[in-house]
Amino acid sequence: MTTIEERPAPTAAPLDTEALRRHLDGRFADLKERFRRQAPQDLFGPLDHLSTREHRDLTRERLRTLARWGGHELGYSSRWGGGDSPGGQVAQFEMLGFGDASLMIKSGVQWGLFGGAVQALGTERHHAELLGPLLRLELVGCFAMTETGHGSDVSSVGTTATYDPGTQEFVVNTPDASCRKDYIGGAAEDADIAVVFAQLVTAGEPRGVHAFVVPLRRDGNDVPGVTREDDGRKMGLNGLDNGRLSFDHVRIPRTALLNRYADVAEDGTYSSPIASANSRFFTMLGALVKGRVSVSGGALSQTKVGLEIALRYGARRTQFKRPGGDDEVVLLDYLAHQRRLLVPLATTYALSFAQDELMGEMDELLGVQLSGSEPDPARQRAFEGHAAAMKVASTWHATRTLQTCREACGGNGYLADSRLPQLKADTDVFTTFEGDNTVLLQLVAKGLLTSYAQQFSDLDTLGMARLATRDFVTTYAGRSPARSLVADVVEAGRVPDDLHDRAWQLRMLTDRERHITESLAKRMRRARSKPEADRFTAIDDLQDHLLLAGRAHTDRIVAEAFAAAIARCEDPAVATLLGDVCDLHVLALLEAEKGWYLEHRRMTTLRAKAITTAVNTLCRKLRPRTEELLAGFGTPRAWLASSLVD
Amino acid sequence: MTTIEERPAPTAAPLDTEALRRHLDGRFADLKERFRRQAPQDLFGPLDHLSTREHRDLTRERLRTLARWGGHELGYSSRWGGGDSPGGQVAQFEMLGFGDASLMIKSGVQWGLFGGAVQALGTERHHAELLGPLLRLELVGCFAMTETGHGSDVSSVGTTATYDPGTQEFVVNTPDASCRKDYIGGAAEDADIAVVFAQLVTAGEPRGVHAFVVPLRRDGNDVPGVTREDDGRKMGLNGLDNGRLSFDHVRIPRTALLNRYADVAEDGTYSSPIASANSRFFTMLGALVKGRVSVSGGALSQTKVGLEIALRYGARRTQFKRPGGDDEVVLLDYLAHQRRLLVPLATTYALSFAQDELMGEMDELLGVQLSGSEPDPARQRAFEGHAAAMKVASTWHATRTLQTCREACGGNGYLADSRLPQLKADTDVFTTFEGDNTVLLQLVAKGLLTSYAQQFSDLDTLGMARLATRDFVTTYAGRSPARSLVADVVEAGRVPDDLHDRAWQLRMLTDRERHITESLAKRMRRARSKPEADRFTAIDDLQDHLLLAGRAHTDRIVAEAFAAAIARCEDPAVATLLGDVCDLHVLALLEAEKGWYLEHRRMTTLRAKAITTAVNTLCRKLRPRTEELLAGFGTPRAWLASSLVD
Repeated sequence: MTTIEERPAPTAAPLDTEALRRHLDGRFADLKERFRRQAPQDLFGPLDHLSTREHRDLTRERLRTLARWGGHELGYSSRWGGGDSPGGQVAQFEMLGFGDASLMIKSGVQWGLFGGAVQALGTERHHAELLGPLLRLELVGCFAMTETGHGSDVSSVGTTATYDPGTQEFVVNTPDASCRKDYIGGAAEDADIAVVFAQLVTAGEPRGVHAFVVPLRRDGNDVPGVTREDDGRKMGLNGLDNGRLSFDHVRIPRTALLNRYADVAEDGTYSSPIASANSRFFTMLGALVKGRVSVSGGALSQTKVGLEIALRYGARRTQFKRPGGDDEVVLLDYLAHQRRLLVPLATTYALSFAQDELMGEMDELLGVQLSGSEPDPARQRAFEGHAAAMKVASTWHATRTLQTCREACGGNGYLADSRLPQLKADTDVFTTFEGDNTVLLQLVAKGLLTSYAQQFSDLDTLGMARLATRDFVTTYAGRSPARSLVADVVEAGRVPDDLHDRAWQLRMLTDRERHITESLAKRMRRARSKPEADRFTAIDDLQDHLLLAGRAHTDRIVAEAFAAAIARCEDPAVATLLGDVCDLHVLALLEAEKGWYLEHRRMTTLRAKAITTAVNTLCRKLRPRTEELLAGFGTPRAWLASSLVD
Repeated sequence: MTTIEERPAPTAAPLDTEALRRHLDGRFADLKERFRRQAPQDLFGPLDHLSTREHRDLTRERLRTLARWGGHELGYSSRWGGGDSPGGQVAQFEMLGFGDASLMIKSGVQWGLFGGAVQALGTERHHAELLGPLLRLELVGCFAMTETGHGSDVSSVGTTATYDPGTQEFVVNTPDASCRKDYIGGAAEDADIAVVFAQLVTAGEPRGVHAFVVPLRRDGNDVPGVTREDDGRKMGLNGLDNGRLSFDHVRIPRTALLNRYADVAEDGTYSSPIASANSRFFTMLGALVKGRVSVSGGALSQTKVGLEIALRYGARRTQFKRPGGDDEVVLLDYLAHQRRLLVPLATTYALSFAQDELMGEMDELLGVQLSGSEPDPARQRAFEGHAAAMKVASTWHATRTLQTCREACGGNGYLADSRLPQLKADTDVFTTFEGDNTVLLQLVAKGLLTSYAQQFSDLDTLGMARLATRDFVTTYAGRSPARSLVADVVEAGRVPDDLHDRAWQLRMLTDRERHITESLAKRMRRARSKPEADRFTAIDDLQDHLLLAGRAHTDRIVAEAFAAAIARCEDPAVATLLGDVCDLHVLALLEAEKGWYLEHRRMTTLRAKAITTAVNTLCRKLRPRTEELLAGFGTPRAWLASSLVD
């Protein structure tokens, strides 16, 4: 058991917080720093007390300011005035997350979802007509996928687009209220045009979900057959005008189909370069992945603001007299307060490094797509799984952490002036949109099962059990930069005395993922072999196991990303500090999961207790480093916009 | 391991849901049922989209309606027009919790905190002058305890009340901004008068915190020297006008001191029937306990509304096609959804039964106090610990559950129309006010240590370790109706095969509480023997252990209350259903805490896995009973006021 006395003392030399910040900023550090220094300051500032009307008006105004300032065009092809840098565009979205989330999401609807769909699913005719105006905000769009009755299950949307060869038009129609497009940002007021996902029907054949460009307004008037409704007041994000759209046999030209992956000829003949309807559907959904990466980044930014407010408040707020003294104790000097706030601070660091890795993958893969080619399908699939896992992890982390921050600031944290209520309310829907977390986590787990099955399809159960761990890790870790590190670790197979041994920490997480996935695979095989009548229940019985597998996978990739970031850090003092932060993140995670580890005989009871002690010791050790760790976030003080911070 | 096939089939006879409701309603069932049937319906109804101004006006109007209807007077002595039924008053507060929480809290400020302080801390002269008008709402009051810089630590408030024998007045003064009274409901606008907690100084001697009646407004004008500020917009409860009060040498007559427990004579001589300043302070704080019981009850009511909305939505919302079928699966048929919502439903039942037991204790003890006597100090202390534990458990349960309900309803749950955002935002401060949960939980644990020390002060460590479990339980369980049941259980000492064995379940919780408290006592003794310079850190190092002890204690008393409620249930079908609900509550708790049980060798790994299976099986079993369990809440449909429920 390691006590604080046995650990090296904090480095005497002052930490280079700029080096820490640049390292945390990662691949897009230059862009982020430019945004901090130069972005229009009227994008930021307090928002409490705004009515829905006022907040929508302010957000619209700020979106225009942002359109003039730029950055949103980065993700588009340079052929149309873009910057060929999808990562740069998402990095700017992440920076907007330090301000009003309504503006961030509003910009995401226009230039991420709507513009992104035109770019990714459309062809030259759409690009030439739409990209310029939408980048300049002369054309305001929305992204009409979700329906009232069909949230996560996009393949079941009920809106139809039926081809009429007589007029060479598609007829877009909403058969019933459950098929209204709903919660659509921009649909209540601002959008002139929509990308609508609908079931394409031609020559009497249903061809599955495709995307169409549908004008909602022409010369300031609503297009006949289009009905808009306002979703009204929401828990948060009230700067955004969410609404509902219904279509009553609205006619659009044949060329309104975004036809990169499928087309309909004048005579109604359907064609597609992708033979399988299923592959086609998932390729088109790939356009959504950037949205998930963006939400993950934005959630982390909002979390950083909340943590900084709560930590700065906790570092000056006193409560109760020190026993035997007359001074009062600073809140953050209490162990319970440190556990509440420093553990999520450490996890925010971990997720930020993992997010940066995801951004690197995305930038490469979308770069290929921008150039008109298709990325390697296996890499694309791995990236989609990675993005889903990070979206789940970051958004649930935001929900939990901002709740804790609110409570940690007591009555003050309940006042709108503190900004914490707004942060909490705005981010709350992040766990729901761009894929509900519970559904996404199951997709992550199913992805694990698929790669597991591909790898081991020719092995029997016993063979699988005997399989060296290394093979598993090599397969699962994929392109992770930490892969070789992990492989070394797993090979070594030893249990060190030191809980701060990074190799052991990663092995603990890898082993958990492996065991959970293997046992899930076996149970799933049994469930699938049941008679059809019992099959749904048999598979559904595994749902909690499936969710656990998704979590275990995410835990492992996040910790690996943190370890890799430390390994490549060139400033020794920064690396040492990050080492402690990583220890706190991983050991707090092992502590939270000790039930599983003990149950599966992966941890002795002595070690479980030692981990609790180590978490406490690390909290004490990092308490005096709080200021430096917050400096690593690099948030300009004015952006905090909270009455709790001077 | 028990599977669903091995359990008895659901009873064929239709369940008497009225019997279930009456049993859950408990001691004040008649009053609750009368309120459901007869309370003015304009107290209820949707609130979304209201501005702060509109919401405050509506709440004020509704408070007047409530004043006319009555029920709030129940907690007062019949000498002054009351009903001698403190439990009845709190039961009505609990019923208001099914509607707008702002109204509930507003009524609690007037007739619970303000009026309650006058009743409990004042004497005949205050009762005669104030109780009639405040009950009729001719006099609107507020309760000015908390200060900007002093939240949980009431003994450190900085407001002073210095006696001036020359004019026979107290001079009330706010020395600096940290001593402003803050977050005071009614202080921004409505209150004409305040009960102010201040440091009493007389003859140059500080005498500790006492309560004074201080007028804020006379004949419609602000009293000179009183400054009021508005706390502004809050996360929720915006129907309540919270504000700040500062006093600049405001003079009040000597008789303004609420002098039940201490008085100042004309010449400035201080006297008190309670010799110890500490006891006096805690006796006066006893006036707060009713507030904690009320908040616990109100939190459970709001939770019931949220759960009913989410469960009814989950029972009709479909998502994803059934494999091999064309119909879509109802959300609540998914195991993950059942786990999300049915486990908190079971825990809500558990907490409601525990709340009813707490209400019984309170009604007896406050009844004694109302009659002018003082309750037995040991019973009073036990009750205060019980109330603190329940306040913590119910309010954190509300925060967690309403968050889950919001997420379980997806995008629909984010719309204000669903009512879930309002429920979440309103209840969020419940974990903070009437004692911050983290602070209260430590008080609970310290109470455990005290009774532990009293019991075992003459035993050495070894003797303690050898002590039979039964003695411990007898001591700790106190007056719990489940005591004899538990004692029998612990004596038996066997580990049954059946996870549904109630005796074994309770023993698991009792044993955990005992072990955690014993080890805490030992560690605390070592920490207290450290040199003074190290003592704060040594004790603070135990903070997470302290919090764990508080939780373990609460878990035990809640489960015991549930077991006792089943034992006294006369309808066999209701008792059987409640048995399953109790199983789900306890087994889900044991599953969540399996880390501790495995670490401390209280559970085999095989049993840990069996518990997870049993939780899943119970979810499946209770899924078809959802409608009946919601009927047990007895919430009139109109009160749900949600777009997600027809």
